[in-house]
Amino acid sequence: MMNAQLEQVPGFLFFDHVAISVKPGELEAHVNAYKTMGFREMHREDVLGTDQVREVLLQIGNGPNLVQLIEPLNAESPVAKQIEKNGGRGGLAHVALRVADIQKAFDYLKENGFKLVDKAPRKGSRGTMVFFIHPKATEAAAFGYLIEVVQEGDHA
Amino acid sequence: MMNAQLEQVPGFLFFDHVAISVKPGELEAHVNAYKTMGFREMHREDVLGTDQVREVLLQIGNGPNLVQLIEPLNAESPVAKQIEKNGGRGGLAHVALRVADIQKAFDYLKENGFKLVDKAPRKGSRGTMVFFIHPKATEAAAFGYLIEVVQEGDHA
Repeated sequence: MMNAQLEQVPGFLFFDHVAISVKPGELEAHVNAYKTMGFREMHREDVLGTDQVREVLLQIGNGPNLVQLIEPLNAESPVAKQIEKNGGRGGLAHVALRVADIQKAFDYLKENGFKLVDKAPRKGSRGTMVFFIHPKATEAAAFGYLIEVVQEGDHA
Repeated sequence: MMNAQLEQVPGFLFFDHVAISVKPGELEAHVNAYKTMGFREMHREDVLGTDQVREVLLQIGNGPNLVQLIEPLNAESPVAKQIEKNGGRGGLAHVALRVADIQKAFDYLKENGFKLVDKAPRKGSRGTMVFFIHPKATEAAAFGYLIEVVQEGDHA
């Protein structure tokens, strides 16, 4: 029962992942703690370029929701700076929403006044295409956190 | 293909919700921004007791994942204190994991050395039962953020 207006919205499907920053050297201890909780490691990758992080994806149950642990590979990583800004502690880094058509989502949000970090969708890890919504989000509502928008990659 | 060990884990199913704190007076502007993104408001409740928040749940797509906006009802709300600590800004408050049997999850995590905020599962909003894992999580891995564990409520 969608009207014409609603059919134009970007079509967010579910939480692709919640990203957690981890202090350098502590990644394996965190992976083990999540495994104790019953999570399953399903992907691991060093993401270079502007990110400079080691990423581990852990599946929750049998669904599409993932926890993404990100450990900075060096001091230049934005995640290293985020940890430093956070008093040397890791924690919640961003929330990622899965979308079917990333270019459509990008265009829609831009047209509707959302402040976007990226100038266009770009390559993410595991063959995905991604862009980030700025924490200031809209003129009326500063969300106060980073949202990543993700289109499925090749591995899926 | 689960072994005996894995069958004893608490059985996390998916992200029940990601909670976002919102500054007093800004809730409706945030709800509207999420609606623009295509999210659907599916529950609203003033949660009293120790929480003291107005909560709005927004559904992402047709799945079980929700965004939970929480606005403090007064200065005594833990969310008000969190916003104050965060330089007056709202943002990511906690991540909630859905579990089938909350008592089993509570006992399992306690036995496995997880630091829990609550002494036992307690009533949450919309008829749920909940408890929180402390940000310090385990001796070896301080997660740095709050995880809520949620068993389905009556509304579902």
